[in-house]
Amino acid sequence: MNDTPNFSARHTGRLLGLGVGPGDPELITLKALRLLQEAPVVAYPVAKGRASNALGIVEGYLRPEQVRLPLVYPVTTEKLPPPFCYETALRDFYDDSCVAVARHLDAGRDVAAICEGDPLFYGSYMYLHDRLAGRYETIVVPGVCSVVACAAAASTPLMYRNQTLTVLSGVLPAEDLARHLARTEAAAIMKLGGNFPKVCGVLRELGMTGRAIYVERGTMARQRVLPLAEVDPASVPYFAMILVPGTRWVGEAA
Amino acid sequence: MNDTPNFSARHTGRLLGLGVGPGDPELITLKALRLLQEAPVVAYPVAKGRASNALGIVEGYLRPEQVRLPLVYPVTTEKLPPPFCYETALRDFYDDSCVAVARHLDAGRDVAAICEGDPLFYGSYMYLHDRLAGRYETIVVPGVCSVVACAAAASTPLMYRNQTLTVLSGVLPAEDLARHLARTEAAAIMKLGGNFPKVCGVLRELGMTGRAIYVERGTMARQRVLPLAEVDPASVPYFAMILVPGTRWVGEAA
Repeated sequence: MNDTPNFSARHTGRLLGLGVGPGDPELITLKALRLLQEAPVVAYPVAKGRASNALGIVEGYLRPEQVRLPLVYPVTTEKLPPPFCYETALRDFYDDSCVAVARHLDAGRDVAAICEGDPLFYGSYMYLHDRLAGRYETIVVPGVCSVVACAAAASTPLMYRNQTLTVLSGVLPAEDLARHLARTEAAAIMKLGGNFPKVCGVLRELGMTGRAIYVERGTMARQRVLPLAEVDPASVPYFAMILVPGTRWVGEAA
Repeated sequence: MNDTPNFSARHTGRLLGLGVGPGDPELITLKALRLLQEAPVVAYPVAKGRASNALGIVEGYLRPEQVRLPLVYPVTTEKLPPPFCYETALRDFYDDSCVAVARHLDAGRDVAAICEGDPLFYGSYMYLHDRLAGRYETIVVPGVCSVVACAAAASTPLMYRNQTLTVLSGVLPAEDLARHLARTEAAAIMKLGGNFPKVCGVLRELGMTGRAIYVERGTMARQRVLPLAEVDPASVPYFAMILVPGTRWVGEAA
């Protein structure tokens, strides 16, 4: 961990990028919990008008006097009507978030930027990190990422011996998904939601449906683990995942 | 998590597959620590004549009265002189380990089978799980896997937006490594050791050396993070990793 202070001469706060795990509050690490509880300010991502998943995971661990700093996503879909541009909206959101976080850091207050799963594995924290880690002392605490959490939920090993695991975004075009899936022994396809039918189509084409496991809200209270064929496409949230575990190794040469 | 007892009628112990994280003892989860400390028996993998990495991580958390059950790897390299066969030796090792673990389970004692990183992500626990999970109540607790731990150690985001991450074993032949690396935006190459020069050759051929980061013993006391070019190949342990992070997203369309 990059615990070594590089900015000791300045009296600024520290940026703490904390992975709080996949959903079960007990799946936070001792280190993330310690730094979280010591931080005077807790910053968390939240979509406009919704509850924050990350805050929900750790809420029971916080003290009333800790400052809550919501970082409010302006948009939740990549498909926006013109003249709006998702990329621009997102970039402006991260820029604004950094101004809000930096205000506390400049005042000498540590900011715990919490993130579901792991902060550097498709985590929203990454975009704060890129903008702020060069300017402030920064500690990143890795977390249990959703891929391994969903494998545990499904009680299935992911990859054996020297098998390859490919982690894919369901947002990718069907042909890109197919190209990757055809060449890997194990896969995790994240960011499902409305992308679910497209992903299912690709898996069907490749004859992989039978090996695929659907995991929704892994390790959370409303967790569901289902064979792919039993999933109602209309019910699939963004925080669902399809796992294609590697073929079991039973003792022959790999 | 598959906490629901399926074997409540039997008075057998529970198999607990516990990820204890990448090395820093503070990177264990609250749940793994709780189950570990409650278990009367702690089983851990250890290579013949060496110290156990997994046991080393949690040793400070154990009570003297907890039974230690070492599962001793007979071999540590895949290249054995004939007539010895690595696959056979490994299969026999797992079969024997299961007999030792099942003896405690049959006597009604829970067994915490600990595993560095995550138990289902290249974890030795997988092979116990496949043999025993159908016969005994089983709980798998996911852990912080080495890939995200090394990204935190290197202070680098792994994959942005819809980038693909490929997790590879350094044991693979050069042509397989090259085929995968040419088609992914981000990669983690594990199981280095003597495979390091071959992996470096592939990265050089693909022009990826400049983007690659070497992380040795991520989150442990003797952690080293280096640009690939500065690594002495003779010094590379098995528990080292090369990360190729995805290209930073700065706000343009992905």
